[in-house]
Amino acid sequence: MPTVPPASKAAGRTAADAPALLERGRTLAMPVLRAAIDRLAPPMDTVAAYHFGWIDTEGRPADGDGGKAVRPALAVLSAEVTGAAPEVGVPGAVAVELVHNFSLLHDDLMDGDEQRRHRDTVWKVHGPAQAILVGDALFALAYEVLLELGTAEAARAARRLTTASRSLIDGQAQDISYEHRERVGVEECLEMEGNKTGALLACASSVGAVLGGADRHTADTLETYGYHLGLAFQAVDDLLGIWGDPAATGKQTWSDLRQRKKSLPVVAALAAGGPASEQLAHILAADAESSDFANFSEEEFAARAALIEQAGGREWTAEEARRQHTTAIEALDTVDMPDRVRDQFTALADFVVVRKR
Amino acid sequence: MPTVPPASKAAGRTAADAPALLERGRTLAMPVLRAAIDRLAPPMDTVAAYHFGWIDTEGRPADGDGGKAVRPALAVLSAEVTGAAPEVGVPGAVAVELVHNFSLLHDDLMDGDEQRRHRDTVWKVHGPAQAILVGDALFALAYEVLLELGTAEAARAARRLTTASRSLIDGQAQDISYEHRERVGVEECLEMEGNKTGALLACASSVGAVLGGADRHTADTLETYGYHLGLAFQAVDDLLGIWGDPAATGKQTWSDLRQRKKSLPVVAALAAGGPASEQLAHILAADAESSDFANFSEEEFAARAALIEQAGGREWTAEEARRQHTTAIEALDTVDMPDRVRDQFTALADFVVVRKR
Repeated sequence: MPTVPPASKAAGRTAADAPALLERGRTLAMPVLRAAIDRLAPPMDTVAAYHFGWIDTEGRPADGDGGKAVRPALAVLSAEVTGAAPEVGVPGAVAVELVHNFSLLHDDLMDGDEQRRHRDTVWKVHGPAQAILVGDALFALAYEVLLELGTAEAARAARRLTTASRSLIDGQAQDISYEHRERVGVEECLEMEGNKTGALLACASSVGAVLGGADRHTADTLETYGYHLGLAFQAVDDLLGIWGDPAATGKQTWSDLRQRKKSLPVVAALAAGGPASEQLAHILAADAESSDFANFSEEEFAARAALIEQAGGREWTAEEARRQHTTAIEALDTVDMPDRVRDQFTALADFVVVRKR
Repeated sequence: MPTVPPASKAAGRTAADAPALLERGRTLAMPVLRAAIDRLAPPMDTVAAYHFGWIDTEGRPADGDGGKAVRPALAVLSAEVTGAAPEVGVPGAVAVELVHNFSLLHDDLMDGDEQRRHRDTVWKVHGPAQAILVGDALFALAYEVLLELGTAEAARAARRLTTASRSLIDGQAQDISYEHRERVGVEECLEMEGNKTGALLACASSVGAVLGGADRHTADTLETYGYHLGLAFQAVDDLLGIWGDPAATGKQTWSDLRQRKKSLPVVAALAAGGPASEQLAHILAADAESSDFANFSEEEFAARAALIEQAGGREWTAEEARRQHTTAIEALDTVDMPDRVRDQFTALADFVVVRKR
């Protein structure tokens, strides 16, 4: 059973397109991304190649899974809204991937996260200085890749990328500040997730259209689609972070609970009130003081997950994913585009909510 | 006696203009820079204000000296090359200052430097995460400040800023890698200083002209001026880092020697050959192994400085500053600009080489 049942009526038909769309985005964007990374001076090119999973710690070629590639798929698809070829969106896809990976490099260091995609993080392997430096280089490269096109459209795309970048940074600032707080409200959590995930998916969903010469309304509307899709994406991520199948996600069981993450299900459960909510609050407050937290058993995390579910946090988050998914797809109604392109945006939105990893 | 005698014939006349030009740059750029920083979400606005010296660690207003403000002075002056008002260069001045300060925040953390401008560095006061995050925010803001102008000129300025930013990052990568090496060649040192200091001064010296609609030759030539001025600036900095008057520089005596910095005088002395050079190499190799280095006496550092001077490192660096200063001013010959503006570029170049701090 999918974590969140697809909300779009056409899901049965369109969901089948998603893997092909993801593959197309990957195929178009990857060589350009690799060429951009090749521009970096040593040792930054090597550190970046390790981060992307293209080589291992010894510098031997590796076959990183490259992630889900939702952003490149959206970027090249959005070019087609304007009647342009998907290739027109490629520099935008690459710029967005560079900004995303800049944020991963820096966030992993700031958060002290030692693992990403089943591998040691860059700061762990190459040291904090390289994580900072290569993150900076990817960020600069993102603007270079767009602005070297030298067109008015590229300048507009870069302008929108600054907005997304600043939101990303704001979201990380909120994430850091929330860590030190006992209680975080549902609205605060959604705002943070909108900044960390929504803003860049908004940019990905519109950047190809902007490069294809879309008018402001079209670009803004595609951003709205992407923003809400980002919130749906993150809600599903938060569900998988607790109840995901380790074999599919590649993460530990109860992963987010082990990290004491104040994710949406937790925050919603705490805000719900009632006996399970109060008991959960009591337990999490004690956990925060516990020096033995790292050694908690499977059963202890399972008990916390059960309380979150009893308090309604799981169902609320699944419902939120459906709401955001619906809002995303509805946003597309006000923009003129070929039916095929609209169906494909829907297919990608469906993929985001039914995925298991 | 100035560290390096001014090379420009007109120095006697024009040098008097430099303080007024620096003051004008500061007056025009500062309010816009402050308004840009005000856009940052808390606590990043506060951390940035601390970094710029506008508030102290307790958040009380402070009167930071704001640095020499050579870059803003160059940026607004460069606008006048095109016949535009100096104000036209202001967004460029602000963007360059933001990129410069982004690099200071990150470099201080990477290098573990605990002091800057007589104050604890941001990572020391607010922690590494805030230094990374606020650096990132300043970097994003730099592109935002330019691209929100929405003009073709601003897009071209932003494109040139990506080049400068990438050089800056390359220079820091070189600086880090040189630290782990016993020997660094003079050419390598100059390349690193060109990346770290030259590229951003090149951008500062041309950005106002680009915003004023300068053609490519004019912009490139102003970049050449700025690049060589940056190398002159850095050569003087390297002299002051060893022989500067602590009362003027605000740094410790023999500051760069205490930090084992492979600056230009050291590298040139080691490359010179001869008895003093060999003795210096011998001593520095021993210093690198010494566990007691932190407790070395004034006399021990003075002896090293004397050897650098005997081997010719001091004179070579002063000569290099003069050469770069001359190359910078000569570059201006191929560009048409009002005599007053040309004199003022010369005045700022003279200031850079005669300054004592």
